[in-house]
Amino acid sequence: MHILIIGAAGMVGRKLTERLAADGAVGGTAITHFTLADVVTPAKPAGFAGTADCVTVDLTVPGAATELLSGKPDLIYHLAAIVSGEAEADFEKGYSVNLDGTRHLLEGIRTTQPGTGWKPRLIFASSIAVFGGDMPDVITDTYFLTPETSYGTQKAICELLLSDYSRRGFIDGISLRLPTVCVRPGKPNRAASGFFSGIIREPLAGQTAILPVSEDVRHWMGSPRATVQFLLHAATLDLSLLKNRRSLTMPGLAVTVGEQIAALERVAGPQVTALIKREPDPVIAHIVSGWARGFDPSRAESLGFVAEREFDEIIRIHIEDELGGKLPA
Amino acid sequence: MHILIIGAAGMVGRKLTERLAADGAVGGTAITHFTLADVVTPAKPAGFAGTADCVTVDLTVPGAATELLSGKPDLIYHLAAIVSGEAEADFEKGYSVNLDGTRHLLEGIRTTQPGTGWKPRLIFASSIAVFGGDMPDVITDTYFLTPETSYGTQKAICELLLSDYSRRGFIDGISLRLPTVCVRPGKPNRAASGFFSGIIREPLAGQTAILPVSEDVRHWMGSPRATVQFLLHAATLDLSLLKNRRSLTMPGLAVTVGEQIAALERVAGPQVTALIKREPDPVIAHIVSGWARGFDPSRAESLGFVAEREFDEIIRIHIEDELGGKLPA
Repeated sequence: MHILIIGAAGMVGRKLTERLAADGAVGGTAITHFTLADVVTPAKPAGFAGTADCVTVDLTVPGAATELLSGKPDLIYHLAAIVSGEAEADFEKGYSVNLDGTRHLLEGIRTTQPGTGWKPRLIFASSIAVFGGDMPDVITDTYFLTPETSYGTQKAICELLLSDYSRRGFIDGISLRLPTVCVRPGKPNRAASGFFSGIIREPLAGQTAILPVSEDVRHWMGSPRATVQFLLHAATLDLSLLKNRRSLTMPGLAVTVGEQIAALERVAGPQVTALIKREPDPVIAHIVSGWARGFDPSRAESLGFVAEREFDEIIRIHIEDELGGKLPA
Repeated sequence: MHILIIGAAGMVGRKLTERLAADGAVGGTAITHFTLADVVTPAKPAGFAGTADCVTVDLTVPGAATELLSGKPDLIYHLAAIVSGEAEADFEKGYSVNLDGTRHLLEGIRTTQPGTGWKPRLIFASSIAVFGGDMPDVITDTYFLTPETSYGTQKAICELLLSDYSRRGFIDGISLRLPTVCVRPGKPNRAASGFFSGIIREPLAGQTAILPVSEDVRHWMGSPRATVQFLLHAATLDLSLLKNRRSLTMPGLAVTVGEQIAALERVAGPQVTALIKREPDPVIAHIVSGWARGFDPSRAESLGFVAEREFDEIIRIHIEDELGGKLPA
């Protein structure tokens, strides 16, 4: 099996690659070949015995997608995107990368296909940013998409394209609306959502974290491990079960900031939560107030997608996967 | 006021042009200039005293949209599209005309705009084809879009683009999901939906009509007059009331074929309905079974959009507007 991962240098892409390389197979079929692509060259997966081509690609360049697809991969993960803040700040770049890039990929598949019998599975990383504005506390699987950002608009459009290209038989596609990843490993960043991870990650590393919103703010989160598991499960799921409704909101945990902090105190003690400093930021509070607070992901759950059931578990996963199982001294 | 109508040579475009020319004004502001555009040259509106530029345009050609917009129209109607059957038969043409054409229009506005203070109102003709597959009998205003055709996919994508370009301040846009027009004037065509009009229009003209589905088939219809009225109302509506949710399912009438025929008998008598010949066509029955049967258009109604309340009225409108008020002898 040949797997192409676009966006392989990103956080989720790296974790997915590592996990696939460690498993060595998908659904019982051995992985013989990786093509790992990103705007910066991805790293080769350690200990993988097969072929791993690590390539730099810009899907907005005409012809780049077709070249990337020349090996006719059986399974394609499309994780590449510019993030919400950048797509809002740079209108043209957002549409170019997040919409045209995806369209070039889809057209690259469609136009390469005739006479080959090749019909790859395409797993697309969508986002809960397809929802926005006035929303119920719990969004069901038949609720309409009302993005309030250009990023969310681009993801929603790509979902529609993926469904149509699947219905027409060019791909076997699925769009997974991933929850906000928490605890996101690495350094603090300036994303408006950064504090959801920061208030856990920094204190567990013995550092101060800033909390810019009130503790009653509720958000939809999943661990990096659950995110990778969603992507793996989508690789072997019988997609005919989706009946042409190929976009799925992934399970997650609807948790308030206060509940996050209480869980951190249970897991790591009050000396750790004491490192969280309240510094209200009306700009961030306003941005966050436009985000979805919770979902009823019945459909994804009925198809076997599983997430964490409590936030304590999300913290323990971070400690296991990123901190070598150790709490700060 | 300068009004641009794209798709002005089509049935709805012609009726809209005639009505606007007859009114001479929109919301109290005199119409001084029409630009009427289509892939075939539209006719000049009879009796209009102002300027009427009738132009042939193909929006898929780079630069064509920018040229069309050079007069900076205050109000733009975008009614142009290739129809469902053609978009399904010719995948590339469908995306080129229905998606890329609309995107060129939006980009033409955005890139012409800087420094001009020009921000046109854009009224887009969307379709209930954005819904498909398993649907409830009554679709509410917050129900998700699940198109089952490439045409419906393209309309849904354009709705998303229109919302984002409006949110970003490039246009003041609104997407109207028009009901199936009934009674559609003119000759029979081969559209799968053609019989909904044909079983009224042909018998009223003393001709035989074929009914290819059973009488319990229910569909969502509106008269040509109501359709034009929706487009006129959208021209003066305060679009800030839409709160960034700029796609509206228009009111219509959920009526079965049996109810259509009963209304025709009430209005025109049994000698007219006797001209309807039942010739079941499983292909057409299958296509129609995937279409929406009814809506709760509360939101559009609360914003002042009004449709017919009974099918008898739709028939009488056809007799008044197309048959000079006369029933067949």
